[in-house]
Amino acid sequence: MKKAGKLGERKIIEIIQNRLDLMPRMPVPFGDDVAAFEIGSGDLVVLKTDMLVGKTDVPRGMSVWQAARKAIVMNVSDFAAKGVKPIALLVSLGLPRNSTEKDVEEIGAGLNAGAREYDAYVIGGDTGEASDLIISVSLFGMAQKGKLMLRSGARPGDLLAVTGPFGKPSAGLKILVDGREARDDIRNALVESVLMPHARLREGLALAHTGAVSAAIDSSDGLAWSLHEIARASKVGMTVEALPTSREAEKFAIVDKLDPVELTLYGGEEYELVLTVRPRLWGKAEKAVERAGGTLVKIGKVTAKESILFERRGRQVEVEPRGYEHFKT
Amino acid sequence: MKKAGKLGERKIIEIIQNRLDLMPRMPVPFGDDVAAFEIGSGDLVVLKTDMLVGKTDVPRGMSVWQAARKAIVMNVSDFAAKGVKPIALLVSLGLPRNSTEKDVEEIGAGLNAGAREYDAYVIGGDTGEASDLIISVSLFGMAQKGKLMLRSGARPGDLLAVTGPFGKPSAGLKILVDGREARDDIRNALVESVLMPHARLREGLALAHTGAVSAAIDSSDGLAWSLHEIARASKVGMTVEALPTSREAEKFAIVDKLDPVELTLYGGEEYELVLTVRPRLWGKAEKAVERAGGTLVKIGKVTAKESILFERRGRQVEVEPRGYEHFKT
Repeated sequence: MKKAGKLGERKIIEIIQNRLDLMPRMPVPFGDDVAAFEIGSGDLVVLKTDMLVGKTDVPRGMSVWQAARKAIVMNVSDFAAKGVKPIALLVSLGLPRNSTEKDVEEIGAGLNAGAREYDAYVIGGDTGEASDLIISVSLFGMAQKGKLMLRSGARPGDLLAVTGPFGKPSAGLKILVDGREARDDIRNALVESVLMPHARLREGLALAHTGAVSAAIDSSDGLAWSLHEIARASKVGMTVEALPTSREAEKFAIVDKLDPVELTLYGGEEYELVLTVRPRLWGKAEKAVERAGGTLVKIGKVTAKESILFERRGRQVEVEPRGYEHFKT
Repeated sequence: MKKAGKLGERKIIEIIQNRLDLMPRMPVPFGDDVAAFEIGSGDLVVLKTDMLVGKTDVPRGMSVWQAARKAIVMNVSDFAAKGVKPIALLVSLGLPRNSTEKDVEEIGAGLNAGAREYDAYVIGGDTGEASDLIISVSLFGMAQKGKLMLRSGARPGDLLAVTGPFGKPSAGLKILVDGREARDDIRNALVESVLMPHARLREGLALAHTGAVSAAIDSSDGLAWSLHEIARASKVGMTVEALPTSREAEKFAIVDKLDPVELTLYGGEEYELVLTVRPRLWGKAEKAVERAGGTLVKIGKVTAKESILFERRGRQVEVEPRGYEHFKT
């Protein structure tokens, strides 16, 4: 019999889903970034839960304040990808017995900082003893049916876009976890992206208003994985014309003799949004993101064939369906 | 500096709360059984999260199917106490690396069984690796403002009631955990109360409709603790005239030379509702619970002085403010 370590996160989720009765008329399909239920006249309550576990989600160098804040940012990022404003959140906290009073204070302050950054409030929770630090956040908001940016609406011809460059967190983790080195300014930017992630909430909310987005996802499991998820849910393919590698990750890769493509596509802990945009509404989407203080970067387009390709040294190469997966990495 | 083991669950919650900005106009105060936010015209979204941890919440003899089901019942019980119908739930699942595929299947089936028992659905979740089994459930429902049975409405003269007898789970835990013995039929009833708890949802929903209940709470931390919580939130006292000891717990106590009062008042893992009822509406409340298939048992009354007393061998004795507390027990 296979153990969780062999099954992997996605197989575990599939096994569990297969044993669940489906709620009738679910407005958001199982497996999208958020869940929802309808409360009448097209109003949806939108829900998300994501659990931070000390052992796997808190790298060396991250304070408990940062871990608590990150537990909230992880959840807000999924709301951002769907274009939903978070309102309130609950926290289930598992604490090791030897946690100090200062740890608890920092967790409270970190949770509050994370929530208030996105204009939401912690309104309840629960705490108990656990072998490892566990911060399970549940986030709630409201949306109009039909306004949510799901994973499933991409069509051939749509433009593929991201809200910023990739690769910084995977490079940052190599510094924090593997002890790799980098020039001070590069090091700071890379490490900061891991310790103080930011959800692209303003961008996501602005984009949802435009009606220009046909599919969207966050990128916590990496860019390659996000592309494959949109492709799978929308039954389309993609060509990536310009890999959005961050300047700092590029420099780090050169000095440390790493592959910048690997850092860009297959790292986890990314917080950019990955989107497909109706071509005739591109300008509108671009302006909306700029007004929200961000940038919309075109990286390719949606195709009809079911593969995801990018050009590397003059050859078409497949973007592999891999990324960060719990139990496997 | 104090460690979590010394601080205890309630102090930890207090430390965290002190670091949180309060959401304006919270319809349910911090620390009640559920949280809520208003979505306009008196409609509330009601939320609850409670985390099951293998080490502290899954006694020897409980299967993973039962543990998963229990994780849901724990949350439904809080909704029952407030008179709110659960609609949907999310599950954050932390699995030890050596969990088997069969464990995962049983968890899926147990979650579904727990949800469907109360007419709710699992609509999403998250999974990751953890050192111990962690099942963090978030439950969602809707309610009308002013219809929630809070902890804070008890007034002197109100009648004190419960929805059933106490003591079975604490006796059952002594059998499962401490290896105590009992006659087969008694043993089965006691052990069953631990392994297959039931939330008093039908009773809670029926009671909320009557308008007869002035305060309510569930009893997961024990009867004594629940009485003290209502007393504290409502700024009242109580006299307990008839301790609601279960027949089986009573027999177990006699044979095993244990104190039935201790089992009744100070055990945890109880799932009965504890309520205060307006005296002139007692008949209405009693009938509503009977129609829902249960019994409403009067155990005392609410008083103006701030103490909770019961009569023992002709003397007035204090009900102590103790019960199950994570990190301390």
